[in-house]
Amino acid sequence: MTNFFDTDHLHQHISKQYDHELLDIRNRVLTLGGLVEEQVESAVTALVNNDVELAERVISDDYKVNSLEVSIDEECTQIIALRQPTARDLRLVVAVIKTITDLERIGDEAKRIARLSIDLATHYPKKNQLTEVEQLAKHVRGLLREALDSFARMDVDEALRVVQDDRMVDREYESIMRQQITYMMEDPRAIPVSLDIMWSARSLERIGDRSCNICEYVIYYAKGKNIRHISIEQVEKDLRDT
Amino acid sequence: MTNFFDTDHLHQHISKQYDHELLDIRNRVLTLGGLVEEQVESAVTALVNNDVELAERVISDDYKVNSLEVSIDEECTQIIALRQPTARDLRLVVAVIKTITDLERIGDEAKRIARLSIDLATHYPKKNQLTEVEQLAKHVRGLLREALDSFARMDVDEALRVVQDDRMVDREYESIMRQQITYMMEDPRAIPVSLDIMWSARSLERIGDRSCNICEYVIYYAKGKNIRHISIEQVEKDLRDT
Repeated sequence: MTNFFDTDHLHQHISKQYDHELLDIRNRVLTLGGLVEEQVESAVTALVNNDVELAERVISDDYKVNSLEVSIDEECTQIIALRQPTARDLRLVVAVIKTITDLERIGDEAKRIARLSIDLATHYPKKNQLTEVEQLAKHVRGLLREALDSFARMDVDEALRVVQDDRMVDREYESIMRQQITYMMEDPRAIPVSLDIMWSARSLERIGDRSCNICEYVIYYAKGKNIRHISIEQVEKDLRDT
Repeated sequence: MTNFFDTDHLHQHISKQYDHELLDIRNRVLTLGGLVEEQVESAVTALVNNDVELAERVISDDYKVNSLEVSIDEECTQIIALRQPTARDLRLVVAVIKTITDLERIGDEAKRIARLSIDLATHYPKKNQLTEVEQLAKHVRGLLREALDSFARMDVDEALRVVQDDRMVDREYESIMRQQITYMMEDPRAIPVSLDIMWSARSLERIGDRSCNICEYVIYYAKGKNIRHISIEQVEKDLRDT
């Protein structure tokens, strides 16, 4: 996990303690991000290797993600109440509150994939049936990693790249869905396996979407612009114009 | 849509304008909620009646949900920056920020159902194939309505009831999934229709989950307790003990 040391551009506050608190919530988001990345990685490994034990660990570790999220959320509310942040600092706290919600939900998707992998293990899918999902998972994990990096450095260019790359992930996802429908229609005995693969792909696609959400909060923090619901072309144009 | 007039328990502020702002964001959440309820209702009607025109209207109206959400979000950030709310007022603003995110995502699910209904219309599913989904939709719309009512009145008891009722919705959803798998295995030609029905049921189940999220924010506002990730039994015990 990228650590966060470049505090130069956080404008200095009279209270060193306040600076420390703002730095702390950012670092804790990255800790949560690292934990969620591990959960996604383990869930995908469990899926591809029919590893029920690993899948069970993902499910039982989900509480760690949840409690860290609740704890950061409370810290943010405390900062708003006690420090009464404005402008950039306020945008940081709001961006953190939203980012941790998405990270927690990515954790939920990892848990879903883990559950599906336990179900899939009983059907013993052939390794090659999972090749495409494994490929999709690799790309989605890349998106999540880059989203967290863009958050660590509040890097708008990287954030925009993630939003663009997610389009490729969406196309891969669509292709897996079409492929599995073909398999199911050719051989109805394949239906339970195909459905589990489809649901897993769906969870991965959702993780890609949530990684994009995180990038949108980075842009909101850095530029003070809410870019949700605007086309990527329009966002790039607006950012060039500022 | 329930209107929100009972401001007695909002403690009075020196600035009448500030009181007005807090009331305004609550009322605007209910406006957004009403809009989202309509979108869900139209999407389900489009699905059940193979009404492509109505489905297209749901899709094209989604921008209304999005812009209202962005606008309320900005109003909340303004209130935090200018009014520096604390305690109960701060919890209200945070609850509003989180609620509108879930409402916007419920709008996205309505759009998904509308898209599926357009796809389904080409397969002309028989009316009786959709009976169970229609029933599920009725219950989910009830949950959403009650969640919005509990928000309007900040009614913890009603909020808890919604969280409990969502369990029944989850069971109905599971039953639809099992039934569709059986249909698909019996007749592979049914696969495309069954998949669309499964995805629609999935979206409805997600709307139920998000309605529960809204109820959790109501409890957080009223009690200052974050009840996410705690079992419903524990929550009821905790609330009795306070």
